[in-house]
Amino acid sequence: MFMKYPKGVKPNKNYTVTSSKKRTGEVKYGQRGMTLETDLDKTNAYYIKMKYAVIHKKPTPVQIVNVDYPSRNKAKISEAYFKVPSTSDYNGVYRGKYIDFEAKETKNNSRFPFINIHDHQVLHMRQCTAHDGIVFLIIRFSQLKETFMMPFEHFDKYWQNYLDGGRKSIKYDDIKKDSILLKEGINPRVDYLSAVDEFYFKNGAY
Amino acid sequence: MFMKYPKGVKPNKNYTVTSSKKRTGEVKYGQRGMTLETDLDKTNAYYIKMKYAVIHKKPTPVQIVNVDYPSRNKAKISEAYFKVPSTSDYNGVYRGKYIDFEAKETKNNSRFPFINIHDHQVLHMRQCTAHDGIVFLIIRFSQLKETFMMPFEHFDKYWQNYLDGGRKSIKYDDIKKDSILLKEGINPRVDYLSAVDEFYFKNGAY
Repeated sequence: MFMKYPKGVKPNKNYTVTSSKKRTGEVKYGQRGMTLETDLDKTNAYYIKMKYAVIHKKPTPVQIVNVDYPSRNKAKISEAYFKVPSTSDYNGVYRGKYIDFEAKETKNNSRFPFINIHDHQVLHMRQCTAHDGIVFLIIRFSQLKETFMMPFEHFDKYWQNYLDGGRKSIKYDDIKKDSILLKEGINPRVDYLSAVDEFYFKNGAY
Repeated sequence: MFMKYPKGVKPNKNYTVTSSKKRTGEVKYGQRGMTLETDLDKTNAYYIKMKYAVIHKKPTPVQIVNVDYPSRNKAKISEAYFKVPSTSDYNGVYRGKYIDFEAKETKNNSRFPFINIHDHQVLHMRQCTAHDGIVFLIIRFSQLKETFMMPFEHFDKYWQNYLDGGRKSIKYDDIKKDSILLKEGINPRVDYLSAVDEFYFKNGAY
């Protein structure tokens, strides 16, 4: 499964882009979608430090085609391509339970479009749910400065509806109805474990 | 954290190696350590298909430095480096519980040397254990054709001893004593979930 960026997966690190687009300054790929990812990285580091949970972002899947050895003890990957992820981006352990989630942000104020969510990822999340994992999406409306935790079981209703020919997005009002608004602050930046406690554990906070 | 292969992480896919070593046919990097990984990939695919568990290998962590766009809708990574993994290679969900393991094989017949196991990975496994995850190592003696599941709590004794100045390996006899020998077959290739049942669940098989 090879990616032909920018149709599919977007890279999520600060690459040096050598296309003409970079030189004319039209597109800043490195900036797209950085904020939520950065917030989650810092949140996860905080959770680990405080011994609340161990949750990590998975590495970006890459198909390596060619490796050079400019010197004996150095390997340089000189040809590789982005792959479509077959799982979600984040997983880990919390209170012994398996945690799995995907995080997306949108600049749209009225709906969350199903862009960059792949069938394989939804299938993966459905499988993890079937095995009693705690599975959800973190959805940020970046202009509204609101971030939600939507349990996968709610998300899946809208996804199934989309597969049945329905709308390829979830309305903001529906997200508000079917999700928990996350508290944001300094530490943790995006307190999604409190929302997990609220929805999945009935017996108090971590 | 950049890798200077071959001192640290070994790549685990069939790369095209363009160094002089490839041309003289001295080293076949692509073959090293392929067997156990392939067996685990097929085992995990079987477990998913049979709805026993959802466990995946994480992508190889790579630091992307440069991306080219030879045409509008194609991204080619033209410079990247292997990173030291900060977690273990495999994780997922089984019976609602978090599963986490590292897999290694050795050609040594008398001991399992701590090569390519990084401090960060051991720390990660210790953290996951503290959060009540199911954490272990799969260790294969490739010449002996024996594969073991060693619970992390046992492995950690030997690792701590090594950090205290002890031996940088585990003797075969000790592995045999502190691990469960895995059944190997066609499907699943390496039945590590049976060993997980035996050690972590007292109430029967999956």
